Amino acid sequence: MFLPVSLFLKSVSLGFLSVVFVCLWSGIWRGGFAWDGSFLQFNWHPVLMVTSLVVLYGNAIVLYRVPLHWSRWSCKVCHAGLLFLALVLSMLGLCAAFDFHHANNIPHLYSLHSWTGISTVALFSLQVEIALWFGGFCVFLMPCAPLTFRARMKPLHVWTGVTIFIMSLITSISGINEKLLLTLNGRNGSHAQPYSALPAEALFANSLGIVLIIFGLVVLSILSRHKWKKPGFDDETDRPLLIDTR
Amino acid sequence: MFLPVSLFLKSVSLGFLSVVFVCLWSGIWRGGFAWDGSFLQFNWHPVLMVTSLVVLYGNAIVLYRVPLHWSRWSCKVCHAGLLFLALVLSMLGLCAAFDFHHANNIPHLYSLHSWTGISTVALFSLQVEIALWFGGFCVFLMPCAPLTFRARMKPLHVWTGVTIFIMSLITSISGINEKLLLTLNGRNGSHAQPYSALPAEALFANSLGIVLIIFGLVVLSILSRHKWKKPGFDDETDRPLLIDTR
Repeated sequence: MFLPVSLFLKSVSLGFLSVVFVCLWSGIWRGGFAWDGSFLQFNWHPVLMVTSLVVLYGNAIVLYRVPLHWSRWSCKVCHAGLLFLALVLSMLGLCAAFDFHHANNIPHLYSLHSWTGISTVALFSLQVEIALWFGGFCVFLMPCAPLTFRARMKPLHVWTGVTIFIMSLITSISGINEKLLLTLNGRNGSHAQPYSALPAEALFANSLGIVLIIFGLVVLSILSRHKWKKPGFDDETDRPLLIDTR
Repeated sequence: MFLPVSLFLKSVSLGFLSVVFVCLWSGIWRGGFAWDGSFLQFNWHPVLMVTSLVVLYGNAIVLYRVPLHWSRWSCKVCHAGLLFLALVLSMLGLCAAFDFHHANNIPHLYSLHSWTGISTVALFSLQVEIALWFGGFCVFLMPCAPLTFRARMKPLHVWTGVTIFIMSLITSISGINEKLLLTLNGRNGSHAQPYSALPAEALFANSLGIVLIIFGLVVLSILSRHKWKKPGFDDETDRPLLIDTR
């Protein structure tokens, strides 16, 4: 049974809505973008992290359930491509935050948000590296590697992938909360209303958080339904990982 | 195949460690407990929420994988009992926060943490209520309700349960982060070191967050492994929900 198109469209729309929300928050409420070490450089951080580690990543991991008649090879290439783009954007997002901290003498990696965030990106990089090494190993060095070995690697790859996505969700919600607490309750007095007065910006950014959670739950719900796996896509024991072009 | 005892013990130990950590944080670093509307009343909030919605809840949802030779009926009673206790403790935890806000003229439900938290508790209450109504309906009103109907309800019940657990994890991490930002960066000047200087309390509470995430991932990992389901516990079509005493 294929994943219903309506649910797939819901997932894509929620992802798109999340990106629009985070762009509007940074671009309008937070004053726009720059790459000069100022607050405007930091504004790239939420946009790039939400777009990469939540939206692109979420769409990449449900790609194998997409109700299109793609070959296994097309799915793999698209999955790898989306994840590679997500990794590059997340690195840029990290740079935006680190540069801003450096330019304003703010210590790096002190909050729980930063601890979960850096662990997520580290795990994601490790996962991509292992997938590349493993893919290269299977394609170039040992094209006849035992298929049972490849099949054993798959559940670990899938589980690590879901772990990274859940950690991204946890990190993004704590990050939005942290940003609102630090800016709306900031000591510079530039804000007429603190976070506790729930000004329009707080309502808007809180809503972004809720949309992200709903998107995350839709993605996890799609992944959890085994009946939506594409027929014949799951029998790794008789098909090589990465080099199968069907 | 049964869930390995070592993994089950790991899950229980991580849960126990989380409760010890949050008790020490509130009891020692934050000054102890009271029920008088002061900061000391608020200290019950993290203890009760972590204990109920993460630790008790997490253990309740993996109970069906516990490598003990319990009957289906014993598992159900223990599952329901742990969740009922979790619901009561989470309500007390909410009261602790609301009373503190009320006594100190702090608005309720403004932060993203509070939005995700109240949604989690609302969904949990709804889930318990539906389970009780549904159980009562099957036992007293329609003991011969079609088993296929009961079987259809189960995946929804399981998925909502996992959703509540993931939302609890998201909420607890943003809550710890929020509490540290508000207290260590507080304007009353009583703290020698802000959060960004990573004083011992921040290190300790951040570690609590990391332990909670690891606990959550171990629980979700146990749930995701279908091979650890107890034999014969999954064929709801031929066994009634709640009234089966095997």
